[in-house]
Amino acid sequence: MPTRRPAIGVFDSGFGGLTVLKALLELIPESDYLYFGDTARLPYGSKSAETVARYAAEASHFLEGQGAQLLVIACNTATALALDKITAGSGVPVVGVIDPGTESASKASANQKVVVVGTDATISSHAYLRALEARGIRAKEKACPLLVPLVEEGWVEHAVTEQVARIYLDEAFAENFENADVLLLGCTHYPLIAPLLRRVAPPHVKIVDSAESTAHVVRDLLRGTAISGGAEEERRKSPRLKFFATDSVDKFRRLGARFLGREIQDVEHVDLKE
Amino acid sequence: MPTRRPAIGVFDSGFGGLTVLKALLELIPESDYLYFGDTARLPYGSKSAETVARYAAEASHFLEGQGAQLLVIACNTATALALDKITAGSGVPVVGVIDPGTESASKASANQKVVVVGTDATISSHAYLRALEARGIRAKEKACPLLVPLVEEGWVEHAVTEQVARIYLDEAFAENFENADVLLLGCTHYPLIAPLLRRVAPPHVKIVDSAESTAHVVRDLLRGTAISGGAEEERRKSPRLKFFATDSVDKFRRLGARFLGREIQDVEHVDLKE
Repeated sequence: MPTRRPAIGVFDSGFGGLTVLKALLELIPESDYLYFGDTARLPYGSKSAETVARYAAEASHFLEGQGAQLLVIACNTATALALDKITAGSGVPVVGVIDPGTESASKASANQKVVVVGTDATISSHAYLRALEARGIRAKEKACPLLVPLVEEGWVEHAVTEQVARIYLDEAFAENFENADVLLLGCTHYPLIAPLLRRVAPPHVKIVDSAESTAHVVRDLLRGTAISGGAEEERRKSPRLKFFATDSVDKFRRLGARFLGREIQDVEHVDLKE
Repeated sequence: MPTRRPAIGVFDSGFGGLTVLKALLELIPESDYLYFGDTARLPYGSKSAETVARYAAEASHFLEGQGAQLLVIACNTATALALDKITAGSGVPVVGVIDPGTESASKASANQKVVVVGTDATISSHAYLRALEARGIRAKEKACPLLVPLVEEGWVEHAVTEQVARIYLDEAFAENFENADVLLLGCTHYPLIAPLLRRVAPPHVKIVDSAESTAHVVRDLLRGTAISGGAEEERRKSPRLKFFATDSVDKFRRLGARFLGREIQDVEHVDLKE
């Protein structure tokens, strides 16, 4: 991609990473973006670390080939299982979602007690727990496997979703974690139900979103590197967005728009071997 | 498998097919069973017909290699997308779940009006709709994407599941289908919530389960073939059960027991290329 604006590659197994892209677009509109959704091979959650690492490496190479100068692994499972391998095999800087989320949670918590919610796969990996404990934070992890299907059903303001979230959060903010003061959203689907979670979570709790936190880390990284820059008139243009999906382009356009909060136009189908 | 008892191979992308195996065990205890769960590559729903056909063919060959003399494709998606291809490539008789379910629904419906529920992938394939219409039945299809995750969460008698089922069935039994008199369960997860669906469905509705219907077809097929038989004392033995899974053996044992309704012991990990 011949451009003087930075081109950021964003990778996820599916649609969830689009909430990270949304946060990036809001914070860094002076960049262009290449998004890769490995929709034919999702979910990564049921796959081995080796397989996830291989898939993620393929996607990363693809995005580098398309001109990405920085890679955002906008997928909690891929970050948890394969960030080191992706970073080792990449020619450009790589940012995952777990460290930024953990860093923000650490800053936001007055009493250093955090509840993390995510999918079964992310929670089973204990990647958030380890990252939080490494910062001296006591963390409680809670898998919320129904929230992703509820979001994908479009029930983001539905009474059923509220009831399910209440059940999960009641179980999480218990057993010495009643006074935890941060709820860390460790799944890229959850920003879509952040307003609902705000209503359901205990009032004293701050909600920290890995997607937003990741966007801040990317902005700081760009400021400190040669990737940033370009002429002033180049910087003022609207971001160019290009999407790649390994499964149906129509489905990506339709479902993706909900996550990104805007229409998705330029989607190309990509075949990676299965 | 050197035995005079028939060995039936049962194949699914994951755990759901265990409800078909359960129905088979109840109806045909004089057989042995080999179950293959392609848990590392589930769900098949987001994959292309070609890919599903290839995966299913690999699993079928594996089961034939293990001694299966008859194959049950206990997976609605695989049946919908690939039954013809699997049958064409198989050296033994192959039974899917859609024709048996459709046949039972046809017999059970007095006014030839049927509601079919299933996953997004099964409903989008319209395989049930076509099969029912070919029998002169007016059918309404309703995708219920939240029911599988609710079953996998173990909420089979939960108020949330009842509320979700009520929303789906209210939408299904509407618009000229208020008087449909059969509810066809087109997903192998749904037998676990059959009692709940019985409470939620209109009282005049009969519930037809593809798993049970498939077991009846298999019994009839065995009676008509040379596969059936063996000495009387052989027939009286308890069924031998052998399980193969492409992902975690522990997870298969744990989650699978809920679907099968009994402990799962003899599970072997199998690696098929991804």
